[in-house]
Amino acid sequence: MKDTPMSNDRILQQAQAAIAPLQALRGDAVDALATLTAQRSVDAVQYDAHGVAWIATYCEALVQLIDWATRLNADGAFGEMEELILTIGLGEYISQLSGGIPMSQGEMFRLADLGLSLPDAMTPLMSGNTDAARQRLAALMVERQGVATFGATGLDEEFTMIRDQFRRFADDKVLPHAHEWHLKDELIPMSIIEEMSELGVFGLTIPEEHGGFGLGKTAICVVSEELSRGYIGVGSLGTRSEIAAELILGGGTDAQKAEWLPKLASGETLPTAVFTEPNTGSDLGALKTRGVQDGDDWVLRGNKTWITHGGRTDLMTVLARTVPDTDDYSGLSMFLAPKTRGTDAEPFPDATIHGGEIEVLGYRGMKEYTLALDDHRVSGDALLGGKQGQGFRQLMRTFESARIQTAARAIGVAQCAMELSLQYALDRTAFGAPLVEKPRVYAKLAMMAVEIMIARQLTYFSAREKDAERRCDLEAGMAKLLGARVAWAAADNGVQIHGGNGFAMEYPISRVLCDARILNIFEGAAEIQAHVIARRLLDTRQA
Amino acid sequence: MKDTPMSNDRILQQAQAAIAPLQALRGDAVDALATLTAQRSVDAVQYDAHGVAWIATYCEALVQLIDWATRLNADGAFGEMEELILTIGLGEYISQLSGGIPMSQGEMFRLADLGLSLPDAMTPLMSGNTDAARQRLAALMVERQGVATFGATGLDEEFTMIRDQFRRFADDKVLPHAHEWHLKDELIPMSIIEEMSELGVFGLTIPEEHGGFGLGKTAICVVSEELSRGYIGVGSLGTRSEIAAELILGGGTDAQKAEWLPKLASGETLPTAVFTEPNTGSDLGALKTRGVQDGDDWVLRGNKTWITHGGRTDLMTVLARTVPDTDDYSGLSMFLAPKTRGTDAEPFPDATIHGGEIEVLGYRGMKEYTLALDDHRVSGDALLGGKQGQGFRQLMRTFESARIQTAARAIGVAQCAMELSLQYALDRTAFGAPLVEKPRVYAKLAMMAVEIMIARQLTYFSAREKDAERRCDLEAGMAKLLGARVAWAAADNGVQIHGGNGFAMEYPISRVLCDARILNIFEGAAEIQAHVIARRLLDTRQA
Ligand SMILES: Cc1cc2nc3c(=O)[nH]c(=O)nc-3n(C[C@H](O)[C@H](O)[C@H](O)COP(=O)(O)OP(=O)(O)OC[C@H]3O[C@@H](n4cnc5c(N)ncnc54)[C@H](O)[C@@H]3O)c2cc1C
Ligand SMILES: Cc1cc2nc3c(=O)[nH]c(=O)nc-3n(C[C@H](O)[C@H](O)[C@H](O)COP(=O)(O)OP(=O)(O)OC[C@H]3O[C@@H](n4cnc5c(N)ncnc54)[C@H](O)[C@@H]3O)c2cc1C
Ligand SMILES: CC(C)(COP(=O)(O)OP(=O)(O)OC[C@H]1O[C@@H](n2cnc3c(N)ncnc32)[C@H](O)[C@@H]1OP(=O)(O)O)[C@@H](O)C(=O)NCCC(=O)NCCS
Ligand SMILES: CC(C)(COP(=O)(O)OP(=O)(O)OC[C@H]1O[C@@H](n2cnc3c(N)ncnc32)[C@H](O)[C@@H]1OP(=O)(O)O)[C@@H](O)C(=O)NCCC(=O)NCCS
Repeated sequence: MKDTPMSNDRILQQAQAAIAPLQALRGDAVDALATLTAQRSVDAVQYDAHGVAWIATYCEALVQLIDWATRLNADGAFGEMEELILTIGLGEYISQLSGGIPMSQGEMFRLADLGLSLPDAMTPLMSGNTDAARQRLAALMVERQGVATFGATGLDEEFTMIRDQFRRFADDKVLPHAHEWHLKDELIPMSIIEEMSELGVFGLTIPEEHGGFGLGKTAICVVSEELSRGYIGVGSLGTRSEIAAELILGGGTDAQKAEWLPKLASGETLPTAVFTEPNTGSDLGALKTRGVQDGDDWVLRGNKTWITHGGRTDLMTVLARTVPDTDDYSGLSMFLAPKTRGTDAEPFPDATIHGGEIEVLGYRGMKEYTLALDDHRVSGDALLGGKQGQGFRQLMRTFESARIQTAARAIGVAQCAMELSLQYALDRTAFGAPLVEKPRVYAKLAMMAVEIMIARQLTYFSAREKDAERRCDLEAGMAKLLGARVAWAAADNGVQIHGGNGFAMEYPISRVLCDARILNIFEGAAEIQAHVIARRLLDTRQA
Repeated sequence: MKDTPMSNDRILQQAQAAIAPLQALRGDAVDALATLTAQRSVDAVQYDAHGVAWIATYCEALVQLIDWATRLNADGAFGEMEELILTIGLGEYISQLSGGIPMSQGEMFRLADLGLSLPDAMTPLMSGNTDAARQRLAALMVERQGVATFGATGLDEEFTMIRDQFRRFADDKVLPHAHEWHLKDELIPMSIIEEMSELGVFGLTIPEEHGGFGLGKTAICVVSEELSRGYIGVGSLGTRSEIAAELILGGGTDAQKAEWLPKLASGETLPTAVFTEPNTGSDLGALKTRGVQDGDDWVLRGNKTWITHGGRTDLMTVLARTVPDTDDYSGLSMFLAPKTRGTDAEPFPDATIHGGEIEVLGYRGMKEYTLALDDHRVSGDALLGGKQGQGFRQLMRTFESARIQTAARAIGVAQCAMELSLQYALDRTAFGAPLVEKPRVYAKLAMMAVEIMIARQLTYFSAREKDAERRCDLEAGMAKLLGARVAWAAADNGVQIHGGNGFAMEYPISRVLCDARILNIFEGAAEIQAHVIARRLLDTRQA
């Protein structure tokens, strides 16, 4: 019924006119939450608080999408595909703002839950997600099958070159093998890691003086997208290096920087992130692993779990409690704890580290381990920054980068699901025509392209915020929150397009479904991101 | 903001007053679709057509929910839990009707897409899904943990006894082993099948004169729910027997009834359903496997795939093309083709049947196979009903029963996800309190209970329609469509509640996620159900 297309100029103008109302709406939502939290704790009104986090995420995502379109237009690069993405994206997300945002399958949130309603200025945009628009977008996707991104990214030449380079690497070296690594539950071959080292993956954002490339966070996003499109495991190899490097850059002593950064940048040192414990995941501040001073040394003792790439790595970033009689984050310290690199057969050669593999649905390739530190001794200079009680805050700043990078991984996974499904929908015939011609099939494909671009622009925005050295757990949280849902939806719908074959382990889309499921859980579960976002919205409002 | 609880009586009265508007809304939606299809084919307006199918499904589901509440109330059994389920269910589903029904993750449909809006009479009910209601419902779930169903089912004593019997069986014999069968990709032990035979599972709905119990479809729903709660594989063992028995009851000759029904009822004969082909799944009418007459015999030739329990079975129900020069359903015939029962090691002992296992994400326990019929010879009396060209229609009638039973399987799977997650949320502590106390966690649990009851009542309704010997592909399609989504959402949210552990293959919820994913694909994919529903809505409107 809502098939009247808008002209290129008109939609852009209307979109630009929506920026102020979107920002106002976000403000109103935060105000409504503030009213609630004046009476009750944020935790007591959690559902509403998380709803506000989602509303703000949608508002920011749309503002960034409009900003992207505006920049493209200024460069003469706002073509038909970009216009369709903008139109459908605005239409769908504004409709959801008003009618219901799925925070999860089964948890909707609506403006009406806050006593708010959509500003009239935004209603004309609601009708953008039409069958005609989806059909046309999908047709363009078919025409341009094989391009790196559906729609111009808005990034400059340099990033296009980086993207192309890593897309080629993924096509040549990763995609042909990823599914086998997964099915056999194998570690990604060292040869891949070595090639990635040569390509500079592990030193992208490390300053040149420390042996890296000194690029910004956008570079890591582009690289992570393309590697994760090949295989989430490959796109995640850099995450731990990013975490270790960020910890050291942000909180390390000069000696620690000099010792570790060049080796991290070159890929000579592969690190692993050792935070989570069997009883403590989201609530990291409550963890129990102890770090006890013994002469000049520190002795680490406790049980960690879910340690990705725990075996074949040389350095652990360990969060441990060093201040006795504390039970919150104030007593935690971060250690740069060397370990002996293990192998698949013997993951933990050190006598003071024991561990076992945790078998997982997806996200394989590095393996996850339980990891017991049994009086693991490190020298005094392993304490990050030489200061106790700083570990949690050091880590939280670092998580900003990790979450931005995770959002980029999510986009890569979604891109993989979309490309596999587009190909399948072209190849498979039912009822006398290729699947891609069926409205329910191209609707799924078109929405993947639209949501991928929305999540991408939000992620790049958060990367720019981080580069500007602003605290950005708000923006990083938004990017991670949305990206993870987008990837999960893309994988889920990708399986659906594959019909029965989507359920066969032989078909890569079955793996992508499993891989995508992790994104809402790790690096701060969806509920934790919503919590971080809601609290920051309240905090920055008060400021 | 919408925390004002309604009194027991008031909500019921308001709900009853909504029945007529719900029915009118459904009618309006179908009328809107009819207007569209006056100009263009249903397939051309597929997205809208499927949206109308979903709207009608929601309307019917709510009417059935209200009917359930009314019947309970009359029996004095409409307690607090039932009231909460009704209130939240109406609130959420009416809000979705207006604001957006997720046909899939990423495909929303709204009344506004048809130019319709919610009748004013229904708006007061929209506010039923509040935090307070969810919290209270979850608290009652915790209090009553272990009961068979959260909320009275509305079924009579006999069904409660049947349910209890099969719940005990599942608790004792199935639940303790299901996860191991899955992880090891083992066939469900024959001893389980034998015990099920003794319990009468395979003859529930077969008339007593043919050796069965002569119960109605509601009985098969209750049994399938409870067995599938134990393990989807166990709950699905009866599906193939149901299909074979229905085919024979509906279309078989007296001799075929006499020969097969007693053996199916007793479980002596285990059948397998042989319809899908490598290039033909949803569009069964186009299949290519041939049946050629040779003297008195028939010779079957062609490639089938996705054949569940293809090996360890004695009878194939094969859909094949017998009328040459046809390419649609009119040339298809159904065969009751005996085969030699195979084993895990040697699934296909017959020289004329070849096959191989298809490895799958979930839904294991019977195994899926490719199955090539290589001039497999059967005698003349294998042709169902002795008539050619009837196979497709015979099968479509049978699919009604299979889809009702599949809806019940979905409810069982959702119930399993809910019970596992409730237990986990009680056991796991984060931020100083059990997970179950967090609003985002109990929201997920409460919504599982609500949606399970909605799907259950819709399924029982479709079972009653079938028992009344009315064509009910409409109702069966609705029950299957909704049930599959409900199970997938429950499993997805169940994994989320488990956090990282949900991703560990050791935890049963990881299997339930995989198992749940099949429900939207097989027995008519979600898009096919929506298609069937939409067409029937149009057909019955014209009638
Ligand atoms: C494959 C994989 C790889 C991983 N890799 C690493 C790694 O390399 N290093 C590392 O240190 N960790 C790693 N993790 C751990 C990961 O970070 C944690 O799983 C995650 O932080 C969630 O913690 P949890 O599993 O303990 O869940 P919990 O904290 O127990 O949470 C369970 C559920 O409850 C919700 N929840 C928790 N608290 C609240 C609340 N207050 N309000 C509402 N809802 C709440 C959560 O959102 C979640 O849905 C990995 C995990 C997985 C699965
Ligand atoms: C684990 C498992 C067990 C099975 N067991 C059996 C069994 O025992 N016996 C048996 O015969 N079969 C069985 N099947 C097959 C099952 O019934 C088919 O997979 C199902 O019917 C879908 O067919 P398909 O896989 O060919 O998908 P396709 O028909 O190729 O469909 C692919 C996708 O396109 C969509 N689609 C198709 N046509 C249209 C259209 N016109 N408009 C919009 N969307 C459309 C579908 O909804 C689906 O999302 C099983 C399958 C699985 C995975
Ligand atoms: C839930 C969670 C956000 C912290 O919640 P919390 O315990 O309430 O801690 P707070 O948010 O109050 O933060 C504690 C301190 O860190 C500071 N902090 C938090 N985030 C920060 C950031 N991004 N930048 C700088 N400082 C930060 C706070 O300001 C506070 O310091 P203050 O007391 O000096 O003001 C955190 O535990 C978390 O991210 N959990 C998820 C774990 C995860 O992602 N694991 C992945 C492992 S791979
Ligand atoms: C898509 C699908 C619904 C059929 O679509 P179709 O090819 O357009 O066929 P139609 O719906 O037009 O039906 C063909 C005939 O069967 C009849 N029919 C269909 N459903 C019927 C029912 N439930 N009861 C009685 N007759 C029925 C129709 O009336 C029509 O007969 P007619 O020509 O005499 O009027 C069907 O192929 C299907 O269900 N596919 C999914 C396959 C599946 O579930 N596989 C699971 C394997 S385990």
